[in-house]
Amino acid sequence: MSGLRAAGQEVGVTSPVGLHRVVEPAGVLPQAAWRLDARSEIGPNEVRISVERLNLDAASFRQLRDKHGGDGDAVRAEVLDIIATRGKMQNPVTGSGGMLIGTVAQAGRRSPLGLKAGERVASLVSLTLTPLVVTDGLARWDGLSEQVPCEGWAILFARSIAAVLPEDLDPQLSLAVLDVCGAPALTERVVRRYVAERAGSGPVAVAVVGGAGKSGSLSLAAARRAGAGRTVGVVPTVAERDALVAAGLADEVAVADARDPVALSVAVTSALGVPADVTVVCVDVPGCEHGAVLATADGGTVVFFSMATSFAAAALGAEGLAADVTMLVGNGYVPGHAELALGLLREVPGVRGLFEARLAAD
Amino acid sequence: MSGLRAAGQEVGVTSPVGLHRVVEPAGVLPQAAWRLDARSEIGPNEVRISVERLNLDAASFRQLRDKHGGDGDAVRAEVLDIIATRGKMQNPVTGSGGMLIGTVAQAGRRSPLGLKAGERVASLVSLTLTPLVVTDGLARWDGLSEQVPCEGWAILFARSIAAVLPEDLDPQLSLAVLDVCGAPALTERVVRRYVAERAGSGPVAVAVVGGAGKSGSLSLAAARRAGAGRTVGVVPTVAERDALVAAGLADEVAVADARDPVALSVAVTSALGVPADVTVVCVDVPGCEHGAVLATADGGTVVFFSMATSFAAAALGAEGLAADVTMLVGNGYVPGHAELALGLLREVPGVRGLFEARLAAD
Repeated sequence: MSGLRAAGQEVGVTSPVGLHRVVEPAGVLPQAAWRLDARSEIGPNEVRISVERLNLDAASFRQLRDKHGGDGDAVRAEVLDIIATRGKMQNPVTGSGGMLIGTVAQAGRRSPLGLKAGERVASLVSLTLTPLVVTDGLARWDGLSEQVPCEGWAILFARSIAAVLPEDLDPQLSLAVLDVCGAPALTERVVRRYVAERAGSGPVAVAVVGGAGKSGSLSLAAARRAGAGRTVGVVPTVAERDALVAAGLADEVAVADARDPVALSVAVTSALGVPADVTVVCVDVPGCEHGAVLATADGGTVVFFSMATSFAAAALGAEGLAADVTMLVGNGYVPGHAELALGLLREVPGVRGLFEARLAAD
Repeated sequence: MSGLRAAGQEVGVTSPVGLHRVVEPAGVLPQAAWRLDARSEIGPNEVRISVERLNLDAASFRQLRDKHGGDGDAVRAEVLDIIATRGKMQNPVTGSGGMLIGTVAQAGRRSPLGLKAGERVASLVSLTLTPLVVTDGLARWDGLSEQVPCEGWAILFARSIAAVLPEDLDPQLSLAVLDVCGAPALTERVVRRYVAERAGSGPVAVAVVGGAGKSGSLSLAAARRAGAGRTVGVVPTVAERDALVAAGLADEVAVADARDPVALSVAVTSALGVPADVTVVCVDVPGCEHGAVLATADGGTVVFFSMATSFAAAALGAEGLAADVTMLVGNGYVPGHAELALGLLREVPGVRGLFEARLAAD
């Protein structure tokens, strides 16, 4: 996919990380800014996208829906107000954003992203740092779903990432996969390292907490592809258990409340026969840190992808348990992440089935 | 140091992680609990300590001091109230605790910690999960310092960690080192891996943000011992710069505001000649995540030891910068961490000088 490329360090007329778009406070990066300058004129290393659809972050949409008691008009009004006020879509309570798809309207001649006008793309950097203007008042959105049909424009910096949408897949399916593509890519990298270090002296055991979800199902498939010898998906309900068993993505499926540390560690250890070498946390509820640490073997690694992760709870929890585990902040960017995730969707029927069922239910 | 040992998974009459001491809410681990049962009777795998001194976490003490406008009596009253109410010292605002020193009063016959009655020890697990009772009303504390002379008792679980205080060092000096001993141990491990992987094909460059502080100075010494080819310590003031230069712990010393991402990354890259392979964040102020990521080379690692780290800012920041960096939650426990840190204090005069100056100033 030649349209996907991380930008290098090239310095153009404007800042590769978008500092010139920060209005206030001065000196911070766009993600930390309160307000961005979303003017449509682009610098020579920027790209302007004609936006077609926003995909709000799940935590952000849930907060807005709950705040307004499910009143879609009120949700729409607040999203419009946020974008108009801040020049980007960043929920002030959750701090999260989402992503977008659209068409390349103009690519600056010094943009390193390799995009051409007319290409249909998804932005793989968060809406929290993407200058955005909405021009249609979100008239086609009922405020009742994370999927927001939208007219307007957005700006990509030199050091942004965008993927050209594949022609063989429904755009909404691609968007759902690209939204979480960092998780399987990092899981694949971590598991592969354990497999290489173990060098056949025993199977690598992997637990994915939230294994039936979007990032979770992709991470299970990635772990198996990377050579995991034994995998367990942990889910919160019998319905999700049945779906994950049917998808065939894990050797074992266990039902447990991930917020209960003893229940989670017992579920994982019982299913795998041993604590996990790698535990991947993909559930967006607070309070899963201690259970994940307890479920992981000494010398193992916990990868936290949940935005609800508490840094202090993880750090102090592992120390308090005298647990020699490596804990990774789930970085949403790993080179090649989009291709890897789309490849899993294409090649693993169980992944595709879960994604299509989820989209159909939305 | 035979008195230092992590407990295994042995199950005694009481829970090795202290679940039986949790009063509310039920089912969580002691660190996440609101209230612990701090009764003095111990289980067969527990240890009771006669407490001599508490060392409050810096962030916690600062919050209390600021809240009460520097009124020591009010600070003391609140600390007493917290301990009486919660059965442990955990600041409800910062969530942090600290550590303690004391003497082993009674060691259960099935305790795996290897402690004997009469030994003088420091607890290496946080006060946030340690059952604690104060019996002297903290009468010898003026409420104006993190060091709290104290009479009372505390309980260690089977899976706790304690270090016998070395006889060749002042106890306060040992305590200050043990308080942060996870940082140099993890830094040493990470840097050593980069050195091994590079295998002489070029020097490994290390940046320590907050290099003149306790965890920072130890981390600089650990990085050098692990084979770092080039090191920079970043400090916020000219006074700290002069102190760190005099200590001779880093090849370069740079002054920069770590909350300013561009300033921090320019300072590191200028000093090292390249971005850092390993960046260690040891400053207890919020907002350093983006600068640390920007200062780190692709393929590099950021280790966050600051309790002020925001998980979301780190995760979304790296993604937004398309930065292929590994981000570690600084686990306070690494096997051998106490011996490693005390060894650096004994063997590196610059470290000892900074610690002694800091204790003298308190």
